[in-house]
Amino acid sequence: MPKYFLMVVALVCSFASATVSAQETHTLRLAETWGPNSPILGETTKHFADMVEKMSAGRLKVRIDSSNKHKAPFGIFDLVRNGQYDLGHTASYYYKGTIPNAMYFTTVPFGMLAPEQYAWFYYGGGMELMQKVYEPYGLLSFPGGNTGNQMGGWFNKEINSLEDLKGLKMRTPGFAGEVMSELGVAVTNLPPGELYTALERGTIDALEWVAPALDFPMGFHQIAKYYYSGWQEPGAEVQFLVNQKTWEKLPADLQEILRVAMRTAAYDMYAKSTNDSSDAWDRMKEDYPNVTHKVFPPEVIDALRETTHRLLQQEAEKDPLAKEIITSIQDYLAKVRKWTNISDKAYLNSVSGD
Amino acid sequence: MPKYFLMVVALVCSFASATVSAQETHTLRLAETWGPNSPILGETTKHFADMVEKMSAGRLKVRIDSSNKHKAPFGIFDLVRNGQYDLGHTASYYYKGTIPNAMYFTTVPFGMLAPEQYAWFYYGGGMELMQKVYEPYGLLSFPGGNTGNQMGGWFNKEINSLEDLKGLKMRTPGFAGEVMSELGVAVTNLPPGELYTALERGTIDALEWVAPALDFPMGFHQIAKYYYSGWQEPGAEVQFLVNQKTWEKLPADLQEILRVAMRTAAYDMYAKSTNDSSDAWDRMKEDYPNVTHKVFPPEVIDALRETTHRLLQQEAEKDPLAKEIITSIQDYLAKVRKWTNISDKAYLNSVSGD
Repeated sequence: MPKYFLMVVALVCSFASATVSAQETHTLRLAETWGPNSPILGETTKHFADMVEKMSAGRLKVRIDSSNKHKAPFGIFDLVRNGQYDLGHTASYYYKGTIPNAMYFTTVPFGMLAPEQYAWFYYGGGMELMQKVYEPYGLLSFPGGNTGNQMGGWFNKEINSLEDLKGLKMRTPGFAGEVMSELGVAVTNLPPGELYTALERGTIDALEWVAPALDFPMGFHQIAKYYYSGWQEPGAEVQFLVNQKTWEKLPADLQEILRVAMRTAAYDMYAKSTNDSSDAWDRMKEDYPNVTHKVFPPEVIDALRETTHRLLQQEAEKDPLAKEIITSIQDYLAKVRKWTNISDKAYLNSVSGD
Repeated sequence: MPKYFLMVVALVCSFASATVSAQETHTLRLAETWGPNSPILGETTKHFADMVEKMSAGRLKVRIDSSNKHKAPFGIFDLVRNGQYDLGHTASYYYKGTIPNAMYFTTVPFGMLAPEQYAWFYYGGGMELMQKVYEPYGLLSFPGGNTGNQMGGWFNKEINSLEDLKGLKMRTPGFAGEVMSELGVAVTNLPPGELYTALERGTIDALEWVAPALDFPMGFHQIAKYYYSGWQEPGAEVQFLVNQKTWEKLPADLQEILRVAMRTAAYDMYAKSTNDSSDAWDRMKEDYPNVTHKVFPPEVIDALRETTHRLLQQEAEKDPLAKEIITSIQDYLAKVRKWTNISDKAYLNSVSGD
């Protein structure tokens, strides 16, 4: 009889231990570029963590550290690469100093709108190219949410010709700043906290931030006359970074839960941005009816586009992988934009006035 | 000693049975409107089932029956309501005969583009209104994937004025058909299999199907001269239906897995539609360079819009819930379109020629 019990216990135990191991709890640490309670961006990581925890019945938890904790808002790439964090939420183009080819996976001036870019990422070869760039660093990269089309910026001087750009003091970072600089703009980079005062006092003539949802809390509409439509970031996609070793340690079901939660969180951020920017633009117009929407004249747009293409061409000539990525983006854009033109663009132009 | 063993066995057993119950396998049956191997739409349900099975480590499986199995492509609502199926993949506006208010959750003429509509569903009150409509039937409804902006259709006669619509024999179903009919179009409804021949032989002068991705396999570009941009379905969202009793029987983690998989499958279908329509339009233009893209003249668009608004107004007057939904859509559209106009529309117009 005792022998029989022993066998039963052994059997039951071996079964139980198998399920217990499948039920093991994992806590992943995520470092985000954003400060605590950052609208839209910070909501995205919380939403992601929430989905992961619910879908895994608590077996997979994500602990989020904002920039006030890890003190390295633009060092997420290194934090995840070195394994100090398992996950990151940041933007690929912040790391072009370390890996120049990271730049193309956020947005490109005169590039794709968010829906066009998602089509490229998931069905047009974009994911594979992004992985080619991040794999050597032991990282996986996934789309992490779209801000929607970014605005060209807040101006206190009207831009009617290329001449008006010469000597214009403007805060506009990154690749767009390089392009602007080629056209004679005096590009400056100020910390976010100083922007409002600098624009108010005329230390700068213009600045570019994001779109109404994130511009509104900065208050620029209170002190700037013109809000120009953009050309430089038609659909900025932030990113999730995953340490490859962390990924490989997870069972297949938790990997899939992570993958799908990142994907949904990203798409949802685009919808949230659309919602919040439409709310914010509505409020700006209501509170400050004199804020005027403007578009850059064709002369300026043409010069910006030519300069963009020239700079991209230079990058493509330096490195075969850069060339492969830029070619993929340009070919895909040429095709998908023809479809956008006969669908959404034709619709917007024929059914509604501006 | 035996007593001790008994206790251990009891303990281990009770623990094991708890995990076994959490590990219980569920198989849900899904009925879809589409035929087997339907492009884009059928890919969406397979993709959904695949994510669900992987995320749940096989604890939740979805078995898909296409229309050749259940023989009720436009009866999915009843099949899921009656519990013959747990899940459905169909389009809300197919059921306006049974529940008139179902019509507004697919698309509305002169309504929102897909990204605007997702913002409305998830952050603008759309989901809550949809649930109000489906709850009395013991159903949950979720966005199930977007076709992108649908085209106005294939025409062999140019439409230059309202006069050209009078007596035009056109296949265009649903609400758009009602609007067209008010303007003197002889609206006909033919089974899909007869459309090509009818257009080729001149039995009909025009027809509206979907967008390049799904129009291409129908071959209309081989026999029609003009491809008009649309007004009637700016972002048609199909739907997942879930039987509420099935839903309630599932543990919370599997509910969340279902919810997130539906959400991702829907968004992914929009990206896939964008990709496939851009491919298909490219191929059409290459194979049949004489196919000409057209937009309806302002006179026609204005009449279509006025008629649409008049018919919607009539619906709103009949029923308070219809009024609530139509008002929500119109208010949201008015706000979000202002944002789309200064972002995507301004961008598309200023950066790229047609």
